[in-house]
Amino acid sequence: MTSPTTRRQFLQAVGVSGGAGVLYSTMAALGLAPAAQAAPAFRAPNRSDFTLTGRSAKSVLILGAGIAGLATAYELAKAGYRVQILEARNRPGGRNWTVRGGTVETDLDGQTQRARFSGGQYLNAGPARIAQHMVTLDYCRELGVPVEVFGNQNADSYYFNDNVGALSGHPIRHREAKADVYGYVSELLAKATDQGALDAHLTGEDKERLLEFLRSFGAIGPRVAGDPAASWRYTGTNRRGYEVEPGAGFQAGTPKLTPYPLSDVLASGVGRYFSFEFGYDQAMLMFQPVGGMDRIAYALEEAVGRRHISYDAEVRSISNTGSGVSVVYTGPGGRTRTATADFCVCTIPPQVLAKIPSNLTEPVRTALAYAVPNATGKIGLQYRRRWWEQDEKIYSGITNTNLDLSAIWYPSYGFHGAKGVVVGYYNNGANARTYAALSPADREARAVAQGVRIHGEKYRTELETSFSVAWERTRYSEGGWVSWPSRTTGGHYGRLLEPDGRVYFAGDHLSHYIAWQAGAFESARKVVTALHTRVMSS
Amino acid sequence: MTSPTTRRQFLQAVGVSGGAGVLYSTMAALGLAPAAQAAPAFRAPNRSDFTLTGRSAKSVLILGAGIAGLATAYELAKAGYRVQILEARNRPGGRNWTVRGGTVETDLDGQTQRARFSGGQYLNAGPARIAQHMVTLDYCRELGVPVEVFGNQNADSYYFNDNVGALSGHPIRHREAKADVYGYVSELLAKATDQGALDAHLTGEDKERLLEFLRSFGAIGPRVAGDPAASWRYTGTNRRGYEVEPGAGFQAGTPKLTPYPLSDVLASGVGRYFSFEFGYDQAMLMFQPVGGMDRIAYALEEAVGRRHISYDAEVRSISNTGSGVSVVYTGPGGRTRTATADFCVCTIPPQVLAKIPSNLTEPVRTALAYAVPNATGKIGLQYRRRWWEQDEKIYSGITNTNLDLSAIWYPSYGFHGAKGVVVGYYNNGANARTYAALSPADREARAVAQGVRIHGEKYRTELETSFSVAWERTRYSEGGWVSWPSRTTGGHYGRLLEPDGRVYFAGDHLSHYIAWQAGAFESARKVVTALHTRVMSS
Repeated sequence: MTSPTTRRQFLQAVGVSGGAGVLYSTMAALGLAPAAQAAPAFRAPNRSDFTLTGRSAKSVLILGAGIAGLATAYELAKAGYRVQILEARNRPGGRNWTVRGGTVETDLDGQTQRARFSGGQYLNAGPARIAQHMVTLDYCRELGVPVEVFGNQNADSYYFNDNVGALSGHPIRHREAKADVYGYVSELLAKATDQGALDAHLTGEDKERLLEFLRSFGAIGPRVAGDPAASWRYTGTNRRGYEVEPGAGFQAGTPKLTPYPLSDVLASGVGRYFSFEFGYDQAMLMFQPVGGMDRIAYALEEAVGRRHISYDAEVRSISNTGSGVSVVYTGPGGRTRTATADFCVCTIPPQVLAKIPSNLTEPVRTALAYAVPNATGKIGLQYRRRWWEQDEKIYSGITNTNLDLSAIWYPSYGFHGAKGVVVGYYNNGANARTYAALSPADREARAVAQGVRIHGEKYRTELETSFSVAWERTRYSEGGWVSWPSRTTGGHYGRLLEPDGRVYFAGDHLSHYIAWQAGAFESARKVVTALHTRVMSS
Repeated sequence: MTSPTTRRQFLQAVGVSGGAGVLYSTMAALGLAPAAQAAPAFRAPNRSDFTLTGRSAKSVLILGAGIAGLATAYELAKAGYRVQILEARNRPGGRNWTVRGGTVETDLDGQTQRARFSGGQYLNAGPARIAQHMVTLDYCRELGVPVEVFGNQNADSYYFNDNVGALSGHPIRHREAKADVYGYVSELLAKATDQGALDAHLTGEDKERLLEFLRSFGAIGPRVAGDPAASWRYTGTNRRGYEVEPGAGFQAGTPKLTPYPLSDVLASGVGRYFSFEFGYDQAMLMFQPVGGMDRIAYALEEAVGRRHISYDAEVRSISNTGSGVSVVYTGPGGRTRTATADFCVCTIPPQVLAKIPSNLTEPVRTALAYAVPNATGKIGLQYRRRWWEQDEKIYSGITNTNLDLSAIWYPSYGFHGAKGVVVGYYNNGANARTYAALSPADREARAVAQGVRIHGEKYRTELETSFSVAWERTRYSEGGWVSWPSRTTGGHYGRLLEPDGRVYFAGDHLSHYIAWQAGAFESARKVVTALHTRVMSS
C-alpha cells in the first residue's frame, strides 16, 4: 500500500462489498481503529475484492484436512485463492472421524483395529453433537449437510453411581432422580420460606409466588393450616414413571410413587449431573449430521475440490523462505516432495507440530510446547438388537455414571432398526488413560462388565462387535484436545494467534470453543480474515 | 363353550401360544380368576387360536378409521377375522390428520379452507408427539414407520407473558429463565440451610451435600466465611447465553450474565411452565413419524388392506339384531347401504355417536351424553424463510406464553430447508374458542399480531400462507378430545367399557391416555382382547 489514496480506495471497496464488519477489522489491522471488543461478523473473502482492487489472489498451502484446514481452504478458494491441502491421513476430517464397517486404524502402540460394523451403523469417534448456536450448523446449511436431533438428554436414561451409600449400584432413571431432587428441594425451600427464614430476602408477595412455583416445580403438597410438619411435603409424583403404565378402561396406571429417602438421594450424587444439561454448549436441542459427523468433512472436501487435497502426505519440515513458505512432505509411496506457496495455514495440533522440524521462531516453538494435550476415548459397541429401545424404552440419550466408563450413549439414529451402536464409554483424563492402556479386546471386556451392572446380561450376550479409540494414542492427533494453562494477552497462546512470517496457525485449540468443531471453524475464519486483510493491504 | 374339557383345552391353547398374560385375562373373563389389578401384556389374537380350537373367525364391522378403528381392524385381521371399516371422511386417521398442500376441509360453520403449503411442508393438526414409553412407537416399529425426534423442549425458545410486572411483554429464552430461577432457588435454599433453618430436616452430612448440589445446580457462589449475606449468591451464569458468542483467539465471549431481579422473575410466572417438561407424557425425548403423523394412519390402512375400508361412508343408524349388527350408512354419492356383521366396534366419538339413531340401550346413550368434548385448535403458518433457525438459532421446540395463542411450535422437520410451517397457536378451552369463533383469515391475523410481539415484524412479512383447525367445529370430530366428570366403576364411563349387545366401543376416550393416540391403541387392544375372548368362549 503506497499512498493514502490507494488505502482509501481499498477501504471503500471492502466497505462497499463487505459491510461494516470487515471494514472495521481491516481498519484495525491498518492501525486506523482500536481493536474491537467483539469480533465483527465474519465476511468471507470475495473474488470482487481482487477485481475491484486490481490485486491477484495468492497461493496458500494448508497443513491438515481437519475441519480448520478444510474450512480455511473452502473460504479462501471461494475468493479465488489457489489452495492446496496436505493431509497425513487418507481421509478428510481429522478428529471429525466416523468409524464404519471396514475402517482400519493402527494406533501409536501398533495395535490395529478393523471395524466390523454393519451397513448403516457407525461411531462418531470424535465430535458427535452440535449446539444450535454454533457456526457448525451454518456450514451444514451452506454445504447442504442434512442434520437431525442428537439426544443429549433423556428422562428415561439412567444415573448409576458406585460407593454413594444406599443407592450405590442402583440404576436410577433421570426422571426419577429429578423428580425426587426437585421435590425435596421444593419441600425444604417451601418450609424455610413459610416459617419466615428468608424474610430478609423476600417480600410477602415474593413468598406467595415462590410457594406457588415450588408446588408446581416439586409436585409438593399444599400448606396445611396449623401443621407446618405436614405442609409442603414431597411424597412422590407420577413424573417418576409407572410400575404399570396407564392404559385402557380403568387402567389408570400404577405410578412409581415412593421417592427415595432424602438422605439417600443427597448421598447418591445424582444431582451432580443435572447442571450438565443446563450448559450453554450442552443444553438441548442439539444436532448431528444425518449419516455420521464426517458428512461435514466430506462435504467440505467436495466443495474445496478433491484435486486440491493431497492425502497420505506427512509433513517433514516447514520453512518460511522470506517471500513464501516451503514444506517438505512424503507423499503416497514414501517419496519426498516439496510444496511451496505464498502463505501457509498450519492446523496441525500443537503437540504434533512441535516435533516437526521447521524454522519457526523460538517463541512459537515455546508456545506450541505450552499446550497440554488431553486424553479421551470412546468405544462403539454394536448390538444385534436395539434392546435399549425394545426393553427399556430409551430412544437415544445418555446414562451418566461414576464408573470409569463415565457415560453410555444410546444412538440418535437408526431408531427401530435391526441393530445399533451404543457408545460404551466416553471419558477423559485418568478414566480415558485407564482404557487407553488396555488392548481393544480388554477395553471391550471392561466396558461390557461395567455396562452389565446397569443393563443386565444382555449387555454382553447381545454384543456383536466393537471398535475403540484412544485419542492420545492416535497418530497425527496425540490427544483429544488441548488445554492452555493460561491465555493471557501477550502470552504463549497469543503468540500463535499471530502469523510467524508467512505461516498462520488455526484449529479449535486457538479458540474459546476448544474440543468443539465450532472452534475449528471460528479459528479458520479468523485466520482467513487476517490473511486476506494482509493480502489486501500489501 | 359347552364342557369343562373344552374350556380347559381352550385355556391351554391360549396359554401355550399367548403366555400367562392372556391366559390370566381369559380366566378372569371366564370368572376363573379375580380381575387383574394391572392389565396383562397384550397378546394379539392369532390364527392358531381358531385352528387349534376348531372355531371359525367372525366378521366385525368397525365404525371409524381413526387410530382406534384401524388398530382394531389390524389386530383382528391378523387372526383371520373378516373386517370392514366404515369411515365418514375420505381418508384414514380421524384426528390423526396431517394437512398438506391441497388438503380441503369445510367446517361445521360452512367455512372451506384449501391448504396451500409447499411440497414437503405440513401441519399435524391433531396428535403431533409420541413419548418413548407409548405403545404408539411399538406400532411404528411393527409397521415400519420411521420416526425422528420431536422438539418438545428447547433451551433457546422463549417464555412470553403479559401483565406480570416488570418482565411483561419481554421474550425470555428458556435458558435464561431456568438459569435465573434455579439460581435464586439455590441461593435461597443454601442460605436457609446454612443458617440452620432446616436443621430439623437435615443432618450435618445432608446439609453439606445439599449445599454442594445447590452450588452446581444454581451456579451460585460459595460460602463466604463470616459473611452470610455474601454467601451462596446467584449473580448470573453463562448458562443464560451470550451477548457475543465465544469465538476464535481471545474472543472468550460476553455472557448475558446479569440476571433478572428475583422479584421480577417470581412475578413473571416463567416458572409455571417448567414442570410441563417433567411430565411423564411430555418429558424429552419425544418422537414423531418422519413425513407427518398420518404416516401411521396410512401404514395401518395398507396393513389392513384398502379394500376393507369404505370411505365417505356416513353412519345413519346402528342396530343390534340379536345374532349380529346391522349398520345403515350413506356411501359415496349418497346412496344408502346396509352393512351387517357378527360384531361391531364403534370408535365414533361419544358426542357424535350420541346423535346417531340406534337401538343402543338407554344406559349406553346416557353414558355417551356424559362425555364432555373439549375445544382445541392449531394454525400452521408457512414462512418463506426459516427465520427462527437463521436469525434466532431456534431449531424446533416450543415458546410458551400467557397470550391466548398459548404456544408457538417451531417445526421438528425440514431443518435448514427453504421454508417451514410454524404452529402459530396450539390452545384449548376458552383460548381455543376465541380462535374458533373467527374466520380462518382472522385467526391468522390474530395469531400473527401476537407472534409479532415475540419475534418482530418478520413474523408478518415472511408469512406465505396458513391453515387452521378448530376441532370442536370439525365435522365427525366435534371436539379435540373428551373429559369425563368422573370415572367410577359402575358409572357411565364404565358402561362404555362393556359391549352393548354385539356393539363394542373403543377410542382414546375410553382410556387413561385421553388426547393421545396411545389411548386409542390401548383401547383398541382392550376391545380386541375382549371380543376375541368372547368368540373363543362361545
